[in-house]
Amino acid sequence: MKIYLDCYPCFLRQALSAARRAGGTEHQQLAVLKNTMVILDGLDTGANPPEIARLVHHAVKQEISSSDPYREAKLESTKQALKMLPEIRRLIDSSKDPMDTAIRLAIAGNIMDLGVVEHFGDLEKTIEKVLKQPFAIDHTEELKSMLSAADHLLYLADNTGETVFDRAFIERLNIPVVYAVRGVPVLNDATVQDAEEAGLHNVADILPNGSDAPGTILELCSDQFNEAFKRAPVIIAKGQGNYESLSDAGSKVFCLLQVKCPVIAEDIGAPVGSIVCRRSAVSSPG
Amino acid sequence: MKIYLDCYPCFLRQALSAARRAGGTEHQQLAVLKNTMVILDGLDTGANPPEIARLVHHAVKQEISSSDPYREAKLESTKQALKMLPEIRRLIDSSKDPMDTAIRLAIAGNIMDLGVVEHFGDLEKTIEKVLKQPFAIDHTEELKSMLSAADHLLYLADNTGETVFDRAFIERLNIPVVYAVRGVPVLNDATVQDAEEAGLHNVADILPNGSDAPGTILELCSDQFNEAFKRAPVIIAKGQGNYESLSDAGSKVFCLLQVKCPVIAEDIGAPVGSIVCRRSAVSSPG
Repeated sequence: MKIYLDCYPCFLRQALSAARRAGGTEHQQLAVLKNTMVILDGLDTGANPPEIARLVHHAVKQEISSSDPYREAKLESTKQALKMLPEIRRLIDSSKDPMDTAIRLAIAGNIMDLGVVEHFGDLEKTIEKVLKQPFAIDHTEELKSMLSAADHLLYLADNTGETVFDRAFIERLNIPVVYAVRGVPVLNDATVQDAEEAGLHNVADILPNGSDAPGTILELCSDQFNEAFKRAPVIIAKGQGNYESLSDAGSKVFCLLQVKCPVIAEDIGAPVGSIVCRRSAVSSPG
Repeated sequence: MKIYLDCYPCFLRQALSAARRAGGTEHQQLAVLKNTMVILDGLDTGANPPEIARLVHHAVKQEISSSDPYREAKLESTKQALKMLPEIRRLIDSSKDPMDTAIRLAIAGNIMDLGVVEHFGDLEKTIEKVLKQPFAIDHTEELKSMLSAADHLLYLADNTGETVFDRAFIERLNIPVVYAVRGVPVLNDATVQDAEEAGLHNVADILPNGSDAPGTILELCSDQFNEAFKRAPVIIAKGQGNYESLSDAGSKVFCLLQVKCPVIAEDIGAPVGSIVCRRSAVSSPG
């Protein structure tokens, strides 16, 4: 997915938010805004959002010498989600269609995104809503069918905290799972440490993707990750950033997300607030 | 009120919105974004938001050769509000405290602001809410007292459509009113034409302020306006833009507004969504 003009103001907002989370002084925050405008001014309009976000968050970390501005927020998110894990499991176990419920809950967890807003909405209310609402794009049957035939799954994580919902989903599967996370902290996206704090090492092999983009830009990922990507018979890609970078990565990729911004809504063809399980297009090799 | 760093992304969003309303091509929209970043990069942090907004909207009009990008939206707003005028009058006439209701409705109309959002909220719901909610800052008694002693009122307009609510308020007064509007179109702020379309010439003398700032920056206003400002025994200033430029313009100025953005909320000390009737500070001469 290419960048839209609406992303420009959004990146400026995101840069300021990250600068504040990193503890930057007002002077440093202003410097971050100015650096971000230099990045935006030099943009190739064919760029995709996670590529730019990567540069923006790199600028924040450089200006303020912080390796992980969202560390505190991430710890809080994991704590909050872990508290809900028994209830998440109960909802899945008591469901008439546990697999459907597990998929929905994995998508519900995608609300824990600090890229689009300062504070994500109420988790309980989100769960209640997502368990009932129809999918705006629904390729869940194809996903289930591919999962039942696959010898393993590559699962691309998104936000910290959401990881706990992923964990409950993975617990329902009877195939090995490789759980891929960002190689370097960016936004509140999960890293190895964040995933371990959510207990993912108990249910999957955690694999850092070697990149600091808040999405999955294959050219920026490690050889080991690219090998896993190539080898996987089926891939789940969580969240907007992974959708932005993998929307045409081939038919073995399923994007599971909540649509949280108007730009994604326009691109994917589903309104803000909707839930999506979308099989990626095959226009480029997966 | 000085500019806050949060205004930077907001100006970029506003510039893009104005460029689209002006009918700019994608290429022109991008040029507007780039020009806006040049303006933001060169900012004096002591500047106030309407000063910057003025430059930003000037850049839009220059790039796209549009004298009034919000013309269509303004016509629609006036039409929508005029349809409600009988109901607005009825609410005032049937109220136990018609003056209080008229003030509240004038503030309710302030929701018709296209600077902070693309589409303002439901008018009926806003009226219902504003008629009941407590003022976050309440200097209405002082305002009423000054109005009863004054030989005339200078009323500084804000948005088009909101003008109709102002009209209903002015109809309740028994002193002459000078209704000041922007001298040149900017955002959806009311000009002479917009005010006349809302029928304000039937209840007040309409005075253009001679400036194209979406606020009241006295140094940029005409001598005639400044004379009227000096002479007025009491002044009502509607909306965020007038608050931003007149928050310390002296104790004869009363700002009537809805708080619609976090930056104003922080500055004025009242939450987003609250209603305010605030007598300006006297730190600088009014």
